[in-house]
Parts: sequence; structure tokens; C-alpha cells
Amino acid sequence: MALFDLPLDELREYRSVRPEPDGFDDFWAGTLSWARRAALPPKVHEVATPLKGITSYDVTFSGFAGQPVRAWLNRPAAATGPLPVVVEFIGYGGGRGLPIDWLVWASAGYAHLVMDTRGQGGSWRGGDTPDPDDSGAGPSTPGFLTRGVLDPDTFYYRRLITDAVRAVETAAELPGADASRIVVTGGSQGGALALAAGGLVPDLVSAVVSKVPFLCDIRRAITITDSDPFHEVVRFLRVNPHVAERTLNTLDHVDSVNFARRITAPSILSAALMDAVCPPSGIFAAYHAIPAPKQIEVYEWDGHEGGRSRFDIAALEFVDDRLR
Amino acid sequence: MALFDLPLDELREYRSVRPEPDGFDDFWAGTLSWARRAALPPKVHEVATPLKGITSYDVTFSGFAGQPVRAWLNRPAAATGPLPVVVEFIGYGGGRGLPIDWLVWASAGYAHLVMDTRGQGGSWRGGDTPDPDDSGAGPSTPGFLTRGVLDPDTFYYRRLITDAVRAVETAAELPGADASRIVVTGGSQGGALALAAGGLVPDLVSAVVSKVPFLCDIRRAITITDSDPFHEVVRFLRVNPHVAERTLNTLDHVDSVNFARRITAPSILSAALMDAVCPPSGIFAAYHAIPAPKQIEVYEWDGHEGGRSRFDIAALEFVDDRLR
Amino acid sequence: MALFDLPLDELREYRSVRPEPDGFDDFWAGTLSWARRAALPPKVHEVATPLKGITSYDVTFSGFAGQPVRAWLNRPAAATGPLPVVVEFIGYGGGRGLPIDWLVWASAGYAHLVMDTRGQGGSWRGGDTPDPDDSGAGPSTPGFLTRGVLDPDTFYYRRLITDAVRAVETAAELPGADASRIVVTGGSQGGALALAAGGLVPDLVSAVVSKVPFLCDIRRAITITDSDPFHEVVRFLRVNPHVAERTLNTLDHVDSVNFARRITAPSILSAALMDAVCPPSGIFAAYHAIPAPKQIEVYEWDGHEGGRSRFDIAALEFVDDRLR
Amino acid sequence: MALFDLPLDELREYRSVRPEPDGFDDFWAGTLSWARRAALPPKVHEVATPLKGITSYDVTFSGFAGQPVRAWLNRPAAATGPLPVVVEFIGYGGGRGLPIDWLVWASAGYAHLVMDTRGQGGSWRGGDTPDPDDSGAGPSTPGFLTRGVLDPDTFYYRRLITDAVRAVETAAELPGADASRIVVTGGSQGGALALAAGGLVPDLVSAVVSKVPFLCDIRRAITITDSDPFHEVVRFLRVNPHVAERTLNTLDHVDSVNFARRITAPSILSAALMDAVCPPSGIFAAYHAIPAPKQIEVYEWDGHEGGRSRFDIAALEFVDDRLR
Amino acid sequence: MALFDLPLDELREYRSVRPEPDGFDDFWAGTLSWARRAALPPKVHEVATPLKGITSYDVTFSGFAGQPVRAWLNRPAAATGPLPVVVEFIGYGGGRGLPIDWLVWASAGYAHLVMDTRGQGGSWRGGDTPDPDDSGAGPSTPGFLTRGVLDPDTFYYRRLITDAVRAVETAAELPGADASRIVVTGGSQGGALALAAGGLVPDLVSAVVSKVPFLCDIRRAITITDSDPFHEVVRFLRVNPHVAERTLNTLDHVDSVNFARRITAPSILSAALMDAVCPPSGIFAAYHAIPAPKQIEVYEWDGHEGGRSRFDIAALEFVDDRLR
Amino acid sequence: MALFDLPLDELREYRSVRPEPDGFDDFWAGTLSWARRAALPPKVHEVATPLKGITSYDVTFSGFAGQPVRAWLNRPAAATGPLPVVVEFIGYGGGRGLPIDWLVWASAGYAHLVMDTRGQGGSWRGGDTPDPDDSGAGPSTPGFLTRGVLDPDTFYYRRLITDAVRAVETAAELPGADASRIVVTGGSQGGALALAAGGLVPDLVSAVVSKVPFLCDIRRAITITDSDPFHEVVRFLRVNPHVAERTLNTLDHVDSVNFARRITAPSILSAALMDAVCPPSGIFAAYHAIPAPKQIEVYEWDGHEGGRSRFDIAALEFVDDRLR
Repeated sequence: MALFDLPLDELREYRSVRPEPDGFDDFWAGTLSWARRAALPPKVHEVATPLKGITSYDVTFSGFAGQPVRAWLNRPAAATGPLPVVVEFIGYGGGRGLPIDWLVWASAGYAHLVMDTRGQGGSWRGGDTPDPDDSGAGPSTPGFLTRGVLDPDTFYYRRLITDAVRAVETAAELPGADASRIVVTGGSQGGALALAAGGLVPDLVSAVVSKVPFLCDIRRAITITDSDPFHEVVRFLRVNPHVAERTLNTLDHVDSVNFARRITAPSILSAALMDAVCPPSGIFAAYHAIPAPKQIEVYEWDGHEGGRSRFDIAALEFVDDRLR
Repeated sequence: MALFDLPLDELREYRSVRPEPDGFDDFWAGTLSWARRAALPPKVHEVATPLKGITSYDVTFSGFAGQPVRAWLNRPAAATGPLPVVVEFIGYGGGRGLPIDWLVWASAGYAHLVMDTRGQGGSWRGGDTPDPDDSGAGPSTPGFLTRGVLDPDTFYYRRLITDAVRAVETAAELPGADASRIVVTGGSQGGALALAAGGLVPDLVSAVVSKVPFLCDIRRAITITDSDPFHEVVRFLRVNPHVAERTLNTLDHVDSVNFARRITAPSILSAALMDAVCPPSGIFAAYHAIPAPKQIEVYEWDGHEGGRSRFDIAALEFVDDRLR
Repeated sequence: MALFDLPLDELREYRSVRPEPDGFDDFWAGTLSWARRAALPPKVHEVATPLKGITSYDVTFSGFAGQPVRAWLNRPAAATGPLPVVVEFIGYGGGRGLPIDWLVWASAGYAHLVMDTRGQGGSWRGGDTPDPDDSGAGPSTPGFLTRGVLDPDTFYYRRLITDAVRAVETAAELPGADASRIVVTGGSQGGALALAAGGLVPDLVSAVVSKVPFLCDIRRAITITDSDPFHEVVRFLRVNPHVAERTLNTLDHVDSVNFARRITAPSILSAALMDAVCPPSGIFAAYHAIPAPKQIEVYEWDGHEGGRSRFDIAALEFVDDRLR
Repeated sequence: MALFDLPLDELREYRSVRPEPDGFDDFWAGTLSWARRAALPPKVHEVATPLKGITSYDVTFSGFAGQPVRAWLNRPAAATGPLPVVVEFIGYGGGRGLPIDWLVWASAGYAHLVMDTRGQGGSWRGGDTPDPDDSGAGPSTPGFLTRGVLDPDTFYYRRLITDAVRAVETAAELPGADASRIVVTGGSQGGALALAAGGLVPDLVSAVVSKVPFLCDIRRAITITDSDPFHEVVRFLRVNPHVAERTLNTLDHVDSVNFARRITAPSILSAALMDAVCPPSGIFAAYHAIPAPKQIEVYEWDGHEGGRSRFDIAALEFVDDRLR
Repeated sequence: MALFDLPLDELREYRSVRPEPDGFDDFWAGTLSWARRAALPPKVHEVATPLKGITSYDVTFSGFAGQPVRAWLNRPAAATGPLPVVVEFIGYGGGRGLPIDWLVWASAGYAHLVMDTRGQGGSWRGGDTPDPDDSGAGPSTPGFLTRGVLDPDTFYYRRLITDAVRAVETAAELPGADASRIVVTGGSQGGALALAAGGLVPDLVSAVVSKVPFLCDIRRAITITDSDPFHEVVRFLRVNPHVAERTLNTLDHVDSVNFARRITAPSILSAALMDAVCPPSGIFAAYHAIPAPKQIEVYEWDGHEGGRSRFDIAALEFVDDRLR
Repeated sequence: MALFDLPLDELREYRSVRPEPDGFDDFWAGTLSWARRAALPPKVHEVATPLKGITSYDVTFSGFAGQPVRAWLNRPAAATGPLPVVVEFIGYGGGRGLPIDWLVWASAGYAHLVMDTRGQGGSWRGGDTPDPDDSGAGPSTPGFLTRGVLDPDTFYYRRLITDAVRAVETAAELPGADASRIVVTGGSQGGALALAAGGLVPDLVSAVVSKVPFLCDIRRAITITDSDPFHEVVRFLRVNPHVAERTLNTLDHVDSVNFARRITAPSILSAALMDAVCPPSGIFAAYHAIPAPKQIEVYEWDGHEGGRSRFDIAALEFVDDRLR
């Protein structure tokens, strides 16, 4: 993909023009309150793996509406005292896979809680968490971005973002966790969830690591790229144009830009200039909205790879610095 | 697509080797019984359209587990007495759209009940029916073919096929319907639903019209084509190979071949030799399994178009003949 | 296709800068005069179909140079008195197909005359009308857009547009026609023919319905899209650049913008913002050129589908209003 | 394209099973007789080029029905006495281009007559010859392979093959030609025309050079490849299946296999095992049908390139040998 | 990719028919002997990373002709005594990247030596090792599979395979290595190198782990797939057919099947039935040729992913078992 | 490809903003001086071909570092006295092929020296020249544009451009050459080499013919197109971003714009407005930089074909004029 979005100097000035939807704070406060009321204590069971240096646990915690959500917890086998916890969210279509898929943060000395993605896990890595409240409100385009999109209350991402917040709250309660040092991280959809959690429970989050995040400045993004998953919205609106405004209003409720405005933790993001999946203008819009100390890694030549393990290292150093 | 499946003379001999799954009849009997117990009388409201020759009604009937399913009913405006009813099911991804999209059967003098497809309606024609019982059992690949596929009880097509059966039962109860002359029809996914309804409520169905039906001889189909939606199963199994047998067993419960064995009404099918979406070998397998009088239209040069309106005319003549 | 043409607010101001070619009126006056002199009375034969609510006729009328052109005429079976006539033209590559393909307007109470497209009918719906005067003047790129394009006199669209005008004149003479209420309609190529007929015989046309019309602002369109059929011109000019100006001058003679300037009937058009086949800027250029009452339906998310049956309904309502 | 047709050892045994159509000889005898009766002497004008070693002439001769067909004649500038003449036919979509495009045979000491292809010249090299008798009999798919295909009399290739025969007859009459040494050559469509001319006027042709020829064993070819131009037939039959047998019968009249059976001159052909445009089985079928001395160059790894200039050299050596 | 190679039951019987080239053992004995004579002791420097649980070293050892080759060595930070060493080779186009990219084996308690791939590192992960002896013998197709392919002596894979053998020999000499427990592993190109090393220095290798290996049964593979890198050979032969036999003979010298015949260590391989990059028939051919205890993991639905981390776990368990 | 670069009126004003790299002249002076010192006299052997009008020679001359480079020399067979020599360079991926591939200039009365391209000849036409000094400095992306790109000294194009200069110097020494009339020509990569030779040995070159030249304004080109070979740089930088500035600096050393500034011979270039392989803005940047008499042929509708033989004729006329 050649440069198709704004040039870098304009990106450095780009802000989203979209106001946040009415009742945004109330919507999320109510949703989270319900989830917390319905929550049970997490279940944590050690699982056997061939990894000697890392101890793995299968975690089940209460997510949206108290529904059970699965996660892996990996800890350095040699660790004894409380550890900072990195809560990781996964990209679109993937599930939590296996503990062996998640070695970076534990190898760097952190407890690492990897949240499964409800209903996903059928595209590139398996998953174990159903989406029991997929109330099926109305038609949807194959994929997850339009499931229940006719109303913020029934929208898939309402549930998933609530899971993400609850994962952070769970991380703070885990045995052996240092609740004062919680990090949220993820790439693409996972990066969007990191921004959302950072904005919804700012008091719990000590650092935000968001790699080429999805769901940024959605109304613009769907007009400048043909790549999925953003294009799912276009396909949906093509056959359901009479609900376009309702649909877009629902999407506003999960736009990363709106969560970014509420983040108070130091944050590191990445954007890639040739990334048609998560176009850089949206990411810059989210970045500029963060009122906390922040850093953005720009990959001039990357598509949606967004820096690969180079960004991981930048993130590890950023977090090591902030949490010291 | 060049000829990629068996040559025509081998198709004319091809039978599926797959036995039907244990408990097939019980599974469907239980499912249908539950739906019937939960059913309420259909609601039928006339709707205004610019069509003067056709009167349209918005119908809501009780489908799977009594859940409301929408449909359009189109009738010739001039008709007075009871009419035979053609129940139509829709292809993958489409919803019922608008009454104006469905003019053929009413123009030919039939009452025409077009069932909406729960949850679908986001790909090429809009829909109005949610899938409230999408219990979200486990991960799925974007699309509908793996939703809840880990268990026959939670599988999407259990619900959709039940809706189809209930649509037939509803058709028989509609005011102005001649309950002794019910036809089921559809193309692709709709053709699979027509075969399913024909096999599950054979006493109610007077003729089956199934155009390039989907879901035929599934275990073979997923290995000979890369086209969606069959390929959704492959993507799902790639990341969830540990549940392959469970998944395939669930799919056996909705394989058109198994329904075909139970059809007693005269049936007309079509197959297209260059159709990579619904490969012809599966359709011939279903065709050969039908123990009733039957006819198959073969389109040597077609892909998934499967004869277009030429098949519609063949179907109209077939039905006119049988229902006279 | 992401938004690739002008943004909507600029489309609302966009005008073509291209003057019409010298002798435009004389060219068409002479062509039509020849066709009229050579015309014989239309032949109209009822044909049997399985449709009970609609009576169908096979019509043969005299088109360009008096050459026979086929059409279907569908009428509500119950109609007795004179009816307004909707003359429909077909999209690129398609022929008139079968009477069963054309049910909307007859179901809405109109006589519906569907003109076959000379020489076409080999891409997506069959046809029955040869192009006997394809004098083969010079080389052409596969397709119809460059056949005989070296001279306006030998150009394929000279013949086809003349057929369209003659179809309108024929409609007014049909038994049971209300000659004071003739509507022209079509999508894509058919939409271009509707604009052409509306501009060439304005006295005969009571309403123009043109869905995502082709052939608008051609000189610009061929530089902003790679989609066929516009791209046929580019391929032709690549290998025949020495005749570029002749070719473009010929195309000017059939540019919808020039016909639009002569339309006096109320007109409804549609444009789709993601339509790379018939880019929206050209359609707005044509729309803005119409000096009569007019309306444009804009589909923000559509490609060349251009609103599908939603536009049909808008068109039916527009026509019902205007012809009342 | 991986190996998709028969393996080489089966190709070496492959024969077409298709009998030739009734009246094949009469059809061609009548056609050619008409063309000869209508023929005028060729016109030959020298044209200026920047080439000093080659003298170029613009030739116009009488083709099908006496219609004018253009050609270039290139001769070594230094030649004085009569020269053998190589008559070349061009691949699908291309025209004669410019004299500078045709240097091989003249550089090798031959007179080289390059026949333009009527109506073509819009895809990859320009042309100058119209197709004035394109009587437009019925619909066609964009391209040339279905133009007038409903009847052998109106089929495009009837006219083009007649032009090819007439080009050979013209070659023999050209000033400075050695009429006893006429060679026909071409690649793809041009290779088919070479086989046709070789079979239709065997007395005039001293050698046949046919590179990856088109139109071989057509009924099989259209079922084993999706590549154009063979796939044009499939698209045509999809929308016009009621005329499938008529269409195929017409194609039988131009099948290279039928012409090959009548060739008496020594012949060299090429086939490429990965050629999806002109699949090798058809070429072997034609090759095996030739009752004269023959040679086939097989390119194991090539697609439709078919040996490139390596084959040219093989052909030059073959011809030099035969004509010595 | 649908099933395109042999069905599974035939794969289970499939053997390569290709004899090994003359002088195979001498060729490799001479090559390795030269490399050993030119070898210097490896250099091992610790490098700083953010990983606390793993200690990383930058290793430089002597590969082909004594040329320096880079590698990463990762060891569990807590380990003290000698450890078994897993030597890993990388897939086509990738370099060694960063130490953080290689965490699995060290997390499982092994020393892990990751060999950089000379000259590669420009496609999906960066590298640091030049290919100083790329003598550039003759033309090549972009990629590495035809570099110097005209002669086994100049062929790129001669150098790379020698590097792989030398990496194994180096592993045995590393400080803290248990030289009696060396494992070779890799996927795709890396899997081919594992088989090669296993066959060339059988005395040093205790277990072979080869995931969807490349370079198996090459003469067949290049005819059944269009995917790169195998297709590079086809492109090369297309334009250089006169050297086909030399090229294929060179490739025989690196065919995994020939190395497999010499393996004495327990071996685990994987094959994926829909893998068009490394078709399963070749992998089964290599598997069947191994005269040692062996196991093959078959992934029925996978393409070139070949089991992902599921295979990693199978491999870890296999190795743990064998090395205990 | 629709118009994707600047519109024509802006192209006519476009200049590159990039300054040339420090030490540019010294870099090339040193490189050429080394090559000249290492040079041996060319070897020239006549080769047999089937061409009677052209005599062909296999030439081996000393290129970069004195390494042998192959070429064909074609001369009109009838020529006796000294002839002007046209030195031709070849497009990306192709080798010199066979003498029969190169007939235009000899047919026009010139001696024609066609330089083989070291290492290439694996994509579309075979070659015979190795690249013995491919020192393999660091990783590369498949292709030639990043081979040794980390340093100007090791870069592939340093060697190839030196070969081109040496080919010009060789041309002047050939028996039968008129050293005062040397022309350089080529298309795409060959066009870049023509500009480079024209700028590096301006005293030897009497005319420059450069068709859609490659390597123009590289830093911009790699951001506006996704087509190879420019996109090879992007792929390389994606995985090796830490060396981006080094890489781009190396590329500056071969940017055609910098050579264009040093050309003193009359020059003719071509640019094609829809050419995504060598975007027109870069070509205009090079064109505008030439301080000598110049002409640019603009092909409005062409992609990378860039005028085909029409440009050849323009070039022949331009050269005939200048060399008269």
C-alpha cells in the first residue's frame, strides 16, 4: 500500500472533528456498574506446559454482565513476590490460543494476563470464550464489527470492552499481583481495547501500550480504506442504509478517540504510514487526544505489522521506565 | 471456474458415502416439538407499497424456540379464494429486503411467503430478524457457518432450519391459504432450507424447488472448493483442529443429503457444473437420495448463478403441473 | 472502493467543463430522421408465460435505420384501459432476457416496454437483437464502447441511442398506451439511454428515471477509474493513440451531459459515492445540466449497486407523483 | 500455472474424439469461392520508415467477400530476385501495428506479408482493417469468439479465416514473390490461422509454422481453462444456453483439428505444458491429425509464451531446411 | 487452497521415484571438509535485552568456506549446568531478527541457537549475515532458489546448508552446551535445513524437528504448485530452458529426500494437506525415506501454517521424551 | 491504472527537491577509474544465426572491476564502413536473450551493441553474465534493487552502471565503429542506464534515448506506487527500518535525476501517465534536470508500455536527425 492517508507532517497536526456522543459517560458507567455487581471472584488453575521457565494458569473471570471470560496468566517460574501485571488484548479474529503463544512479557519479568476475545478465535488463533449475550439484535455483516450495532446496548464491542475493563480489575486482584502497577497492551483490536481500558479505569492503569490501534476515528476510517474489518461497516450500510445514523452513533460509543481523552497513564502508541487496516490518521487523532505523557512510534514503511518486535522492545523499555 | 468437480457422467452416478449421524431424527423431533410448543399465532399486517397488482403483508411468526421471525407475504391483489402458498428461503448473507424484491410467484398466481433469515441481512440485501438465541457457544469464524458449531444444540443452522419448518407450518395457517398446496423453494442456502423443510415436514409439503442448494455432502465439499461459505469451515478447523470431529458431526446434522432422504414431495433441483460455491457432486448426492419423483436441471456452463430465471420458469412449470 | 472521487460537498457543485461538440443537434436530427423514414409499424405478439397476473408480448419495432429491434411488453393482466408506458433500457452486456425478468413496473400498474440491446446479451442476460449495421469501421477493443468509435456516424452508441428514441416513439403507438404518459428508465447503460431519450425527444417523455447512469462526463471518467467499460476506452487509446482526439470527439456525441441539457421532463437520478464503474462526479455533472425539475438520490456507501430496490421505490413514487 | 492438462506422456497419445461437422468441405469451398469471385488485384504501395535494411509496403488485398484487408509487406532492401514469402497472422486482439514491429523474417531473407486482423487491433497493437461484414447476427460476449456464432455463415472466424486464405493467394501473386515457396505462420490465433490456411489451400503452402495455436479441440478446451478467449464461449453459453448446440456446431467449423487433417505441407508446431490460454492437449490433438511430415516443440515450463524467440529460431531452421 | 495434492491415504504410501545424483556424498564431504578446515572458534558476546528470564548472546561462527555467520543464543537466565542445545533454522526470506523473537525453547529449558540466513532478511524479518561468496554464477530469478543454480558448486543452498551443519558443530562447542544432546529444528526452509543437518552430521544430532519442510521432492513439487518459492524455478526455466537439466541436477543435490535417507536421529515432521507452498507429497516422500524412528503430524485443514504452536508443543514433547 | 500521479500540467512543472549526495562525483570517478584500470580489450566473435541481413557477434568486454560482461553486436550484413553505434541496456529481470531479439537498430543501419545485465536474465529473457562481485553485503529483498544496498560501494547498481559506462567505452573501440556517434538507449531499467551513461561519460555520448526510465526521484517514487521493483525497497525497509537512511542514501547515488544533470547530449525521453512501475513525476524530474536539448514523448493512456514501437520510431527519427 503506497502512502494513501495524510502525509506525515499533516498527521502530526491531525485531530478528529467528531464530538463524542451524548451520554457517553453514563453509558459506560452503567455498563461497568452492572458488570461489577454481577462479578464473582476469578478462578485460577495452574496448567501443565512444556515450559520450565514460565508457570501458566488458566483464569476465568467475570466479564460483561458477569459472564465468564477466559484468560491465560503466565508468570516467570522463579518469581516469588508480587509482580506488575501486563493485561494483553488480542487482535481481530484471534482467541487466546495456548500459553506458549505468550512468552514476551513473562520472559521480561512481568505477570502477563492474556484475555480471550469472546466469540472470536476462528480466524487465526483459537479461542475458548463464548459470547453468551450476543442477543442477536438485528442483522449483521459477517464479522464482529456490526453485531448488534443498531443500538449501543446490544453492540458486540460494548461487551468486549467491558470484558477488557474487568480484566484489568481482575489483574489487580490476582494472587501475586502488584495492583499498583497494571499495564494494558495489545495491537490492532487489542490496541483499541488497551485505549478503552486506559480511559475507562484510569485509576487502575499505570501505563498504556497500544500498537496500531483499531476503532480510531471510525467515521473517517471507513471512507478511506477498503480493508476489513472497517469495510464490514460499509457492506452493512450498503444494504441497510436506513439505519446509517443509528449505526454510526453506536460506533461513536466505542471510538478510541473518545477513550483516549480520558487516559491519565503514560501511553505509547504506534502508527504505520502504509497501514490500510488501521489508517494512521485515526491513530494520530487518538494520540493527540490523550492528555497524559505520551509517545508515538511511527513506522514509515510498515503496513499493519506496525513495527513488529521493534515496537515490543520500545514498549518494554517504555514500561520498564514508567513502572520502575 | 473450469470443470473442477466430477464429470457429468460420474455425477449422474455419484452418491454420498456418509452415514447420517446417530440420533438425527430425535434431534430434529425434539427441536421442532419445542418450537411448536412455544409458538404463538402469526401476526399479519398489510403494508403499503407502490405495487398495485400485488398486496403485501408483513408477517411475524414463531420460529425456533418461539422466537419471532419476520417474513413478507405477497399475494395477487385480485385473488379472492384460497391460494397455494410458496414458501421461499433466502441465500447466504441476505435478508428479506423489501416486498418489491419478490414478484415472481405472486405474478404467477401464488401466495408467496418470503422468510427473513435470522441474523443475516448484512451482505447483499437487508434483513429485519435478530437471532436472539445465538447463545454464542464458543468461537466462530466470521460468517454464519461456524456459529455455535461445537454442538448441534447451539448451532446456528439448527435455529434457521427450525424457522424454515415453522414458516411452512405458518403458511398452512395463513388466511387465504390452501393448506393442501404448500411449496418450498429457494436457492443456495435457501435451497438447503427447502430440502430441509421438505424432509422434516413431508406431510405439509407438496413440492420442493431447490436451486443449487448449499450444505450438500459437506465433508466432501469443504475439501474441493476454496469458496466461501464452505471455506469458513476450513478456516475454523485450521485454528481449532482439536474440535474437528465435533464440528463435522454438528455439520452432519444439517447436511442436505440427510434431509433429502426424507422428502416425499415431487422435487426439482438444479446443479451447475462450474459452481465452486455449491459444487455439483454434493447436489447430485442430495438429488439421488430423494425417494420421491424428481427432476434435476443441469447447467453445464453456469457457476453459482445456476440457471437464473430459466430455472425459475422450469420451477413454475414443474409446480404448476404438480399442484394442478 | 473507498471514496475515490470528489467528496460529496464538491460533487454538489461539480459541473462538466466540456463544451458539446460542433453539430451535435444536426447529427442527432439527421440520424433520427433517417430512422423514422425507414420505420415500419411495430409487431406485437402475445407470448405464453407461467405468469397469470401479467400479460407479455414480444414486440419488434424499427430502430436505427429501420432495423428490427426486439422488446418485451409486460402489462397487468387485469388492465383494460390505456396505461402509461415505462420504457426501460438495459445495462451494459445484458439483453432483454425473458419476460419473467421484468415484473416491477407491470406489478405497479404500468405497461412496461423493455428494449433489447442490439448485439449485447452475452455477458449476464441473453438477448435477441442483432446489430446488423455494425459496419465494423476500424479496430475495436473487446466490448461495445469502442465499436466504430473512429467516427460518430459509425459508432455503436449512435445506433443504440437511436433505438432508444425509437422505442419511446413506439411506446406511444402501442395499443393500450396512454401516449401522454411515457416514462424512460434504466440503470447504468440503461440510465444513459434514458437521459439520451429524455433529451432527444423531450416532447414525448413525461418523466426520466436514471439510475447511476453511464457515459457521463466521459473525458474525466476515463482518467479516474480502472473499471470497465470506461477502461475499454483507455485500452483502445493505448494502442491507437494517433486517433485519440477522433475517438474522444465521437464519445462527446453520446455524453450524457449533452443530452441532459435538453431534458424538459421531471427527472430522478441516483449516484453512489463508491461507484467506480460510473463515478459520481460525472453523474452530478449530468444532473446539474438538467434544466427541468429534478431530484438526485445519493447512496453514500454503495458501489455500482446504486441503491438497489430502494431506488426503484423512490422512482415509483416519483413517477406516480408526476404522472398522476 | 502448474501442470493442469494431461501429463506429457498422455499428451503424446492424445487424439480429439470429435468428428468434423457435416458439410465442412462444402462450407469452406463455397465461402472461398465467393471470396475469389469478388477479389480485385492487390494494391501495393511503398511506405517510408526509418529502416534502411528493409523496404516496407502497405498492401491491400481482397479478403472475405472481396472486402479490403490491409497488410504490411517487408522485404530485405537488398533483395532483387523472387523471394519465398512468409505470410504471418496475428494473435488475438492485435492488429498489424507498424512495419517496424515485423523484422524477423525479412532479416532472415524472406519476403514477409503480415496480415491485419479485421476488427481487432484494440487490445495490444493497433490495426487498420474494419470488419465490414460483421452482420451482427445475434448477441455476443465482448471479444471476437462469439460474434455471429449462432451460424457458421455469420461467424467472425469464417471471415477471418477466409482473409487468411486470401492472404496466401495474394502472397503468391505479389511482385517479387516465389509462388512455389509460401510459408504460413503465426502464434495463438495466428497459429490457428496458419493451420487453417495450410488445410484450406494445401497446394499453395510449402510449410506451416504454428506456435501454441488457438482454436484446437474447442469443445474440450472450454471446459479445462478459465482463461480468455476460450472462456468467452463459456460466458456466452451461460446466458444463452438454449443455443449451446448451435454455438458449438459453429465452433466445430473453425476447429484447428479439422484443418490439420487436410494439411499436406511439412509443419512445425509448439505447445507449452503450463499454457492455460491454449491448453496443450488441443494442440497435440491438432498435431496428431496432420498427415504430413511434422515436428512439435514442447516447452515444459512455459505458459502462453510458448518458447518465445527460441521457437522462432527453430521455425527459421525448419523453414530454411524445407524450402531449400 | 482446496486439497490439490494426493489424498491422505495415497500420501501415506507416496515415495519419491528420483534417484540421488551421482557423487552426492563426495560433493557434501568435500564441501564440509573445506568449511571445517577454514573454521575459526566461534565468538560469543552477551547482549542486553529487556528480558530478565533469558540471557542472550550474539554468536558469530564460521560457516561455508569459513565465512562468518551470525546467530542468537538464548539461554534460561537461571541455568547453570550444561544444557541441551536446540539449533534453529529460519524460513525463506527471514533473518534472525532480534533475540526477543525467539523465546519458546529457552522458556522450555533449552539453550537455543538461532542461525541467521545468509543474504536473506529482506522479506519478513531482518538479518545480519551477508553472503560473501555469492559468486554470481549466471543469471537468477529474483529470490534465492536459483542463485548460482547452474552448478552445485556455486548454488546458494550449498552455502546455506553448510552453514547449517557448521551451526550444529558450533552448538556442540558452545560453553555450557551438552554436546551429547543437540536438536535441529525449523519450519519450511528451516525444516529443510534441519533435515539436511540431520542427514549430514548424523552423529551430532540427537533429534530432528522439521515443520512443513521445503525442498522435498523438488522435481515433482515445481509441477504441482504455482506458489513461490518453488515457482521461482519455473520462472527461471521458462527463460533458460537450455539449462533445465543442469538446473534440476543442481537442485537434486539439496533435495530433502536425499538428506532424509541419511538421518539416524529420531525425527518429527509435519505436513499440511492444503499447503501449496510445501506440498505434502514431497514431505511424505522425505518422511518415508528416514530410516530412523519417526513421527509425522498431519494437519488436514492447514495451509503453510502447518500446525502453528500446536506443532511446537508436539515437538517439545517429542524432544523432551527423546533427550531425557 | 487510472491517473494516480500528478496531472500533466503539474508534471510539466515538477522538479525533484532532493539534493545529490555528498561525494557523488568522487564516488563515480573512483569507481570508473578502477574499472578502466582493470579493463582488457573486448573479445568479438561472429555467431551463426538464421538471419541473412544481419551479422551478429558475441562480445565480451570488461565491466565493473574488470569483470567480463557479455553483449550482442548486430550489424547490417551489407555494411562496410564505420557505423554509428547504439548501445542498448535492458529492462529489469531480463538478459540479452538471443541476437534475433534485437533487430530494430541494425535494420535501421546502425551497429547495435546490446549489453547483458549481470545476474539478471531469470524473469522474462535469459542472460549469460554472472555478477561475480555480488559481495553479498548484508540482507536483501528478493530482486536486485536492495542487493548490497547498505553501502554505495557494495550496491548492485554501482556495478551495473559501471558496466553500462564501460559498454559505451567499448562501443567506441569496436572494429567498424564510428566513435564520434555513440547513442545510448533502453527502456525502464535500461532507460535509467542510458541516463546514467549519458551523465557519466558525456563526452562519448552523442544522443540519449530513454524510455520510461526507472530509478528517477526514488525517494518519492517508493511512496506513490505499490508496484515492483520500487516496492522492493519498501519491503526491505519494513524489516530493516534501522538502516533506512543508509539505504536511501545509497539509492541517491544511482538516482537518474543526478545523472540527468550531467548529460550534455541531445536527449529524448518518454513518460506514460498511467505507469505505476515508473511513475511519470520522477521521469519529468529527470527530464527537467537535463541541461541539454531535449524532448519528451508523453503517452497519456499508457502504463509501463510507454509508447511501444511508436516511441521507437520517434527515437529513430530523433537519432537520425541528431547524428546526421
